Amino acid sequence: MLYDRWKESREDIAADIAHKNAGLLVPPYDDPDVIAGQGTIGLEIADDLAALSLCPDVLLVPCSGGGLVAGTALALRDRHPATAVYAVEPVGFDDLARSLAAGHQIANEEGPVSICDALMAKKPGNLTFPIHQQMLAGSLAMPDETALAAMAFAFDRLKLVVEPGGALALGAALLGPLDLKGKVVVVICSGGNVDPAMMQRALAQGHGLDV
Amino acid sequence: MLYDRWKESREDIAADIAHKNAGLLVPPYDDPDVIAGQGTIGLEIADDLAALSLCPDVLLVPCSGGGLVAGTALALRDRHPATAVYAVEPVGFDDLARSLAAGHQIANEEGPVSICDALMAKKPGNLTFPIHQQMLAGSLAMPDETALAAMAFAFDRLKLVVEPGGALALGAALLGPLDLKGKVVVVICSGGNVDPAMMQRALAQGHGLDV
Repeated sequence: MLYDRWKESREDIAADIAHKNAGLLVPPYDDPDVIAGQGTIGLEIADDLAALSLCPDVLLVPCSGGGLVAGTALALRDRHPATAVYAVEPVGFDDLARSLAAGHQIANEEGPVSICDALMAKKPGNLTFPIHQQMLAGSLAMPDETALAAMAFAFDRLKLVVEPGGALALGAALLGPLDLKGKVVVVICSGGNVDPAMMQRALAQGHGLDV
Repeated sequence: MLYDRWKESREDIAADIAHKNAGLLVPPYDDPDVIAGQGTIGLEIADDLAALSLCPDVLLVPCSGGGLVAGTALALRDRHPATAVYAVEPVGFDDLARSLAAGHQIANEEGPVSICDALMAKKPGNLTFPIHQQMLAGSLAMPDETALAAMAFAFDRLKLVVEPGGALALGAALLGPLDLKGKVVVVICSGGNVDPAMMQRALAQGHGLDV
């Protein structure tokens, strides 16, 4: 069911469908179980790093409503309290960065578009935002070209197909403002729902990196 | 160092380089340790299937000199003696299929080309061929379009970047002559050394499959 992102609420539409069909609504982020489930990636990260005897200095996570970064930060914090966890949002959808600066939830302005179509939630969740405030070092806003470059890099070096929004944290690691030299950096690449045309666009642009 | 595939021997060139530099030559397939090392993927397959309580009916493996398929078949045979293991070769480079039919090693004819550039060894190895004779159900020759379709399928469904030769066994599973309906089929996808132009070609062709 298609809807108007700016004039309608997907949450209301989904709740209505679930109600009419006696269905169960599984929210994408603003739910304790969903946050905990997404957080299991933090446990995997901790286990994988333990096997490598490494301690993560920085963790970068793509962010829309913020369930993934909230859950992962929560799960990782126990074993690695000093890790700087950053959310990564598309430019124009940096509701979390602005909310963190303001100290309360701020919604995105109407208008911008992004190829990172998985990262276009309107504002941080009611459950996720307090976790973000406690747990995150910040949120980075990265342009779409960064996502394309990261997709090309994932193709070239990781042999993985990653969708634009799923690649944005990798893009922030490669092209973002943080100085990561000599640091142990963990990046979450999440989601491979990319159509051939978008992948071809990423491959045509390339990553241009020599790392 | 570039060489003429048809007029020169890469084995001789490599041996010469190794000799001059006091280096150690690691053969791509015709070596007991290399075959055993490649065979560890058979152990992984057996472990993964045990976790799923499955017994493999068919295993499809991309094949050049045949070390991967020989080692994997050997390793798998102990726990799964009834599995039909097939090598998969590019059309024009079906030296193993013809060697198996003839009962002795036959080299490929000079002339054909394939985008499966990892699967263009001249003939089955001296060590690998006797293993093939004992262990394999056969060798399938598949055209290049099959590799491209499999690459598009791996992109679409597996979210993996696979090079043409590495995808050929997957192509044989999807488009090949075997009747796999209702069977437990294991496919090895091996290698992601594909440049953007070839990937774009695969994406432009697509897989056209509804499975």
